[in-house]
Amino acid sequence: MLTSAPRRLRSYLSGAWRAGDGDGAALLDAATGIAIARIGADGLDRAAALDHARRVGGPALRALTLHQRALMLKEIGLRLMEGKEEFYLENFHTGATRKDGWIDIDGGIGTFLTFASRARRELPNAHVIPEGAVEPLSRDNTFSAQHILTPRPGVAIHINAFNFPVWGLLEKIAPALIAGMPCLVKPASQTAYLTELVVRRIVEMEVLPEGALQILCGSAGDLLDHVEESDVVTFTGSAETGRRLKTHPRVVECAVPFTMEADSLNCAILGPDAEPDTPEFDLFVREAVREMTVKAGQKCTAIRRLIVPEALADAASDAIGGRLADIAVGLPDDDAVRMGALVSRGDRDGVRERITALAAEAEIVAGDPDDVRLVSGDPDQGAFLNPVLLRCAAPTTARAVHDVEAFGPVATLMAYRDPEEAVTLSRMGRGSLCASLFTDDPRTAEAVVGGLAPFHGRVLIGNRASATSSTGHGSPLAPLVHGGPGRAGGGEEMGGMRGVKHFMARTAVQGAPHLLTAVTGQWSDGADVRDDVHPFRKSLAELRLGDQLLTEAREITREDVEHFARFTGDTFYAHMDEAAARANPFFDGRVAHGYLIVSFAAGLFVSPEPGPVLANYGIDDLRFQTPVYFGDRLQVRLTCKEINPREGADHGEVRWECRVTNQDEAVVAQYDVLTMVARHWP
Amino acid sequence: MLTSAPRRLRSYLSGAWRAGDGDGAALLDAATGIAIARIGADGLDRAAALDHARRVGGPALRALTLHQRALMLKEIGLRLMEGKEEFYLENFHTGATRKDGWIDIDGGIGTFLTFASRARRELPNAHVIPEGAVEPLSRDNTFSAQHILTPRPGVAIHINAFNFPVWGLLEKIAPALIAGMPCLVKPASQTAYLTELVVRRIVEMEVLPEGALQILCGSAGDLLDHVEESDVVTFTGSAETGRRLKTHPRVVECAVPFTMEADSLNCAILGPDAEPDTPEFDLFVREAVREMTVKAGQKCTAIRRLIVPEALADAASDAIGGRLADIAVGLPDDDAVRMGALVSRGDRDGVRERITALAAEAEIVAGDPDDVRLVSGDPDQGAFLNPVLLRCAAPTTARAVHDVEAFGPVATLMAYRDPEEAVTLSRMGRGSLCASLFTDDPRTAEAVVGGLAPFHGRVLIGNRASATSSTGHGSPLAPLVHGGPGRAGGGEEMGGMRGVKHFMARTAVQGAPHLLTAVTGQWSDGADVRDDVHPFRKSLAELRLGDQLLTEAREITREDVEHFARFTGDTFYAHMDEAAARANPFFDGRVAHGYLIVSFAAGLFVSPEPGPVLANYGIDDLRFQTPVYFGDRLQVRLTCKEINPREGADHGEVRWECRVTNQDEAVVAQYDVLTMVARHWP
Repeated sequence: MLTSAPRRLRSYLSGAWRAGDGDGAALLDAATGIAIARIGADGLDRAAALDHARRVGGPALRALTLHQRALMLKEIGLRLMEGKEEFYLENFHTGATRKDGWIDIDGGIGTFLTFASRARRELPNAHVIPEGAVEPLSRDNTFSAQHILTPRPGVAIHINAFNFPVWGLLEKIAPALIAGMPCLVKPASQTAYLTELVVRRIVEMEVLPEGALQILCGSAGDLLDHVEESDVVTFTGSAETGRRLKTHPRVVECAVPFTMEADSLNCAILGPDAEPDTPEFDLFVREAVREMTVKAGQKCTAIRRLIVPEALADAASDAIGGRLADIAVGLPDDDAVRMGALVSRGDRDGVRERITALAAEAEIVAGDPDDVRLVSGDPDQGAFLNPVLLRCAAPTTARAVHDVEAFGPVATLMAYRDPEEAVTLSRMGRGSLCASLFTDDPRTAEAVVGGLAPFHGRVLIGNRASATSSTGHGSPLAPLVHGGPGRAGGGEEMGGMRGVKHFMARTAVQGAPHLLTAVTGQWSDGADVRDDVHPFRKSLAELRLGDQLLTEAREITREDVEHFARFTGDTFYAHMDEAAARANPFFDGRVAHGYLIVSFAAGLFVSPEPGPVLANYGIDDLRFQTPVYFGDRLQVRLTCKEINPREGADHGEVRWECRVTNQDEAVVAQYDVLTMVARHWP
Repeated sequence: MLTSAPRRLRSYLSGAWRAGDGDGAALLDAATGIAIARIGADGLDRAAALDHARRVGGPALRALTLHQRALMLKEIGLRLMEGKEEFYLENFHTGATRKDGWIDIDGGIGTFLTFASRARRELPNAHVIPEGAVEPLSRDNTFSAQHILTPRPGVAIHINAFNFPVWGLLEKIAPALIAGMPCLVKPASQTAYLTELVVRRIVEMEVLPEGALQILCGSAGDLLDHVEESDVVTFTGSAETGRRLKTHPRVVECAVPFTMEADSLNCAILGPDAEPDTPEFDLFVREAVREMTVKAGQKCTAIRRLIVPEALADAASDAIGGRLADIAVGLPDDDAVRMGALVSRGDRDGVRERITALAAEAEIVAGDPDDVRLVSGDPDQGAFLNPVLLRCAAPTTARAVHDVEAFGPVATLMAYRDPEEAVTLSRMGRGSLCASLFTDDPRTAEAVVGGLAPFHGRVLIGNRASATSSTGHGSPLAPLVHGGPGRAGGGEEMGGMRGVKHFMARTAVQGAPHLLTAVTGQWSDGADVRDDVHPFRKSLAELRLGDQLLTEAREITREDVEHFARFTGDTFYAHMDEAAARANPFFDGRVAHGYLIVSFAAGLFVSPEPGPVLANYGIDDLRFQTPVYFGDRLQVRLTCKEINPREGADHGEVRWECRVTNQDEAVVAQYDVLTMVARHWP
């Protein structure tokens, strides 16, 4: 293991790296007990830092589009990935093995990059996100409404836990920065040196605008006394601290959104079908051992309760206990070691106390919390602990096993009589981040997951089919929500672009369509139109929202329908058989194919010569609203609805509203046509 | 006005109407001061009522599908509408005119019916709502994820304000009941008699299952001491009370979602273009007067601050002040009266105190709070007050005008120098439910609404085009979010189906696709399939998720493309001009029309004979993923993805995943085909 003289951690606040007053407190290497850093932020001006974010960082971020912000994240993520080895070295000080560090470091950077790429795929390249459909509020299209999302003009304050110094930083700032909110991160002291190093590298890159990212290494102090209405606070840590911060008078007075992820009593349930000779049994045992030992069990999502059928309880207990006994514990940079140290000896003391509390209701069946056995390292200097498995005989009446979280390599096994009781036991945890169920039976999955869902932010089903592809019980993923109700804090993070929206304000805007369009960047019916030249002749540089084409009318004849049927093979009775069509509850006789309607519509609206429109890449929300009978005359109105230039590309996406009407002006079909259009032409 | 002997209000709790101990407190008619009811809930068992909802009401509601719940609401809404006249009679006691009552009674029932109809249109007829797309998490489709929404298995506790005794009840219980949560409503005492009457009528209908709706008339008492993790609390009322309830130890410990709507200092802004001779000026004046006087200004959304350009301040002040002087105040059932009474004399005292606080920073320019002038009624018995307009000369340094809410017919006018200052002034309210801007200039709309949005839940733009169709500044609408950040409480209600989701838990479920399908009711790639007979030959009774058809392959030739081009008129260069197609960045040469691909696909997958498939009513999410060149051979895989039977209809909606691949097994196009399918066939 590399060691170095203790360095004084600094906080990056108000545009400079600043040490607090005095020497600060020592931070010790988790496995060796050697001092590696000193931390303290006494005397630093937290109010000024928040003000700096609001005055400098926020406006600079909000001047960029969503895609421009996402591209900054991409660059930062790629450069962090290049330089990640120094983070892995620092990671050893936290007591974590390299494999543990992978979740934190590669996992964190990967999450950052996922946000960067999905934001460009799923969000418009704009400053405002329209959400949902335009709501017409008048019959004559003079008054409509649209929901929009805009960046909250405050600071995102992230108060993080010690266990994921890199992932915790990156998964929280990624959605906030994309949303357009500057961030101030306060890492937990124990591992702040690693968070500080990552922030240092990010700041050095000079990719983010000044004020977009700050870090406070040391106590939060009076930080929350200075929050304002537009700020957001996210917290990960113990439920007790979280509740205290959530009810901070200023947080309450300003109704500051407070997202809390607390430790929770997550469970894994073994299905009644998963007998010892099944792959599901093995998967359950493997997952139990992995969750108890990865990061020495110091994960908010780790399995704390193992809920197994009565008939399988002995077998499960034996199998898990046996495997735990083989786990090599020792120095995290020792290749022979499977599990490293807890983050500090103080934290180890806390875990031991909680094991004692659990042992009042459960029996220790594997491991001895007081007898540390190592393959390397010094049990007196490092915060080592061997895994401990408990077994609770009366779980429906027990309290501690559902409530007391030993934040270490500790879990309690308990038996259930029927799947309903398994759900009851899981719910006694009063809300958790995640649960897993090991079964290959769809009915068990349906019944048990249905019962688990409202008490969990995430539920994983493990079975043979996903044995090698499953990402596992304990891994939050960028596209999925992370959080849980009740005991788990009631918060929700990530979930793909849902996570970005947590940092934006949702506003319903009402007004005349042309004024709405000015606000939302989206054309809607009733807004201004321009019909000077065919809109397919216009490049992105020339095209404007509301550019519109109203085509000639075209009759659809019986011969057209029969010809189309023969040509395509689509001889569905509603088009070909008068009696059968009449018997259909929706039609008065033979009707034209929907596919014929949209094909004729394209024939009416395209401008065939080479031009800036490059391709039709899709159609959204097509609805056939009125049947088309022989002799009906169709007319198309095509209007430019959204223009989405791509950063760094010479084309962009253009969405057109296509409305097909008949001779009675009834809408026959309406849909969005999606095209790629060149930035310039020729 | 009809009067009657004071009736003792009862609470409907644990399946029976119950009076509290003792006689209760008197409730007086707002306009005459005559006692009309007595209220009190001393000694009633609130914990038992919550338990009753959880044990009886919740399971009964959750046994129904979303559409079945919505249909109950439809029936209740229609029957309330039939019997609404008795609510209008009771409404007079609150001090409100018939017109005021319309917002509360017809508005409330209309909101209820809107939720009932939109839920059936926008949500599946199921117990679980899948949210967003399936997330494939492995390359081989053995592991995927899907977010689902399930009813929270607790109670929705609604603590309501006095000003909308009917609307406040109905807009809150509608989304909760549709979500599957039983409700316990605690109306504000002042007007609880009207809420009690409506609940009485609903209970008498016996449409809702027992335990789905309870009402507590009287003090909340120890109600919140008994909340659990799965409950939800919504609160409408003063910020002070709201903050106290939000930080109730049990609410915090259980992380109970707490939605708060508090009074706020909403503003209306007159655009710089809206000079006195414009329609926008008149609309602003009319809206200001309307918002100050409807419900005697006792609306959470009422305009409290009138922000006008310096140059137009005198004109606006004169125009509004002049119109206010003409407002006839008196008995609410007097046809000559435009504005009735405040809800109680005590509330009038509070409004007068706040006018005094405002007058320290602003000058009263219309109305005299101490000199009540009526066209009918007794100023000593009724809670009357004439409208009061204040004008603040130094609004950027004033505090009270942005903070002190006189919850009555009171507003303060203030001038701005430029639109940026208008936004700054609006933001000094520190978060409001709604703002309005009167302008006919798209640039002003863009700039000002952009500034207002993050501080407001709703922003209305008023102009000449929407003069007659606008629903107005003060009206929350069922499809739009209602709520606001900061001072307004930070809550969000309604917003169409968003409101339903507030009462559901969001869970990310991960697993092998066939197990996911069992949980979500949605087929996804990798889940089980069945290919026994053509799925178009199956009625809803026979069809199962995963029923699949794999078609023969069909070649697309150059002749096909040219034929299709001539037939439809779609001679777009990418299909017809080899050189131009090659020059296109997406193609290597001439390609087939997307519309030809989907037409041939339909020809491949349809089963033409008369059968249970009745109609193709649309297509969703069509993406062309790989160009199709001459000679490519296309094959279609059609799979039953969602089955949505309609309550009370003999058909339902079936969604099919349609995947078109080429000879290299590359996906050429993928989309959902939407069909109507008969329940039985023949």
